[in-house]
Amino acid sequence: MNTTDLIGYSSALLTTIAFVPQAHKSLKTKDLSGISLPMYSLFSLGVFGWLIYGFMINSLPIIAANAITLILACTVLYLKIKHR
Amino acid sequence: MNTTDLIGYSSALLTTIAFVPQAHKSLKTKDLSGISLPMYSLFSLGVFGWLIYGFMINSLPIIAANAITLILACTVLYLKIKHR
Repeated sequence: MNTTDLIGYSSALLTTIAFVPQAHKSLKTKDLSGISLPMYSLFSLGVFGWLIYGFMINSLPIIAANAITLILACTVLYLKIKHR
Repeated sequence: MNTTDLIGYSSALLTTIAFVPQAHKSLKTKDLSGISLPMYSLFSLGVFGWLIYGFMINSLPIIAANAITLILACTVLYLKIKHR
């Protein structure tokens, strides 16, 4: 793997796993007051779009990263709607 | 522009602008208790990586989207650190 690919994959990993501590914190504390509903609505829709894009160009890294991010972002979105 | 590109650009736009309402809400309310510090630390680092990646492959859409996201994510990160 060259340096460019390594930076791309590392970045994809970071921006994907970043949502794990947020989903965990939101599930545990139910403290969603500072979380923006429009953010998680737009973000989840965008990540769903990236997932479709990944399937269209047959890119497994894009499909995998966005499938995981979608589950985590939708968890926060669901909690935000539930605890408004 | 074909359908695949259109979906890619729409998704990039959505996942970028999603952080506008979050940064705005955090700036206005200073309610950062439900925001995860590890999330915004990992995410900002990842978006910085994507920015470097964009420069390395000379992709203006990747550079533009991630430069905007980096400013917005770092705004939330700064507020979280300040209002812990």
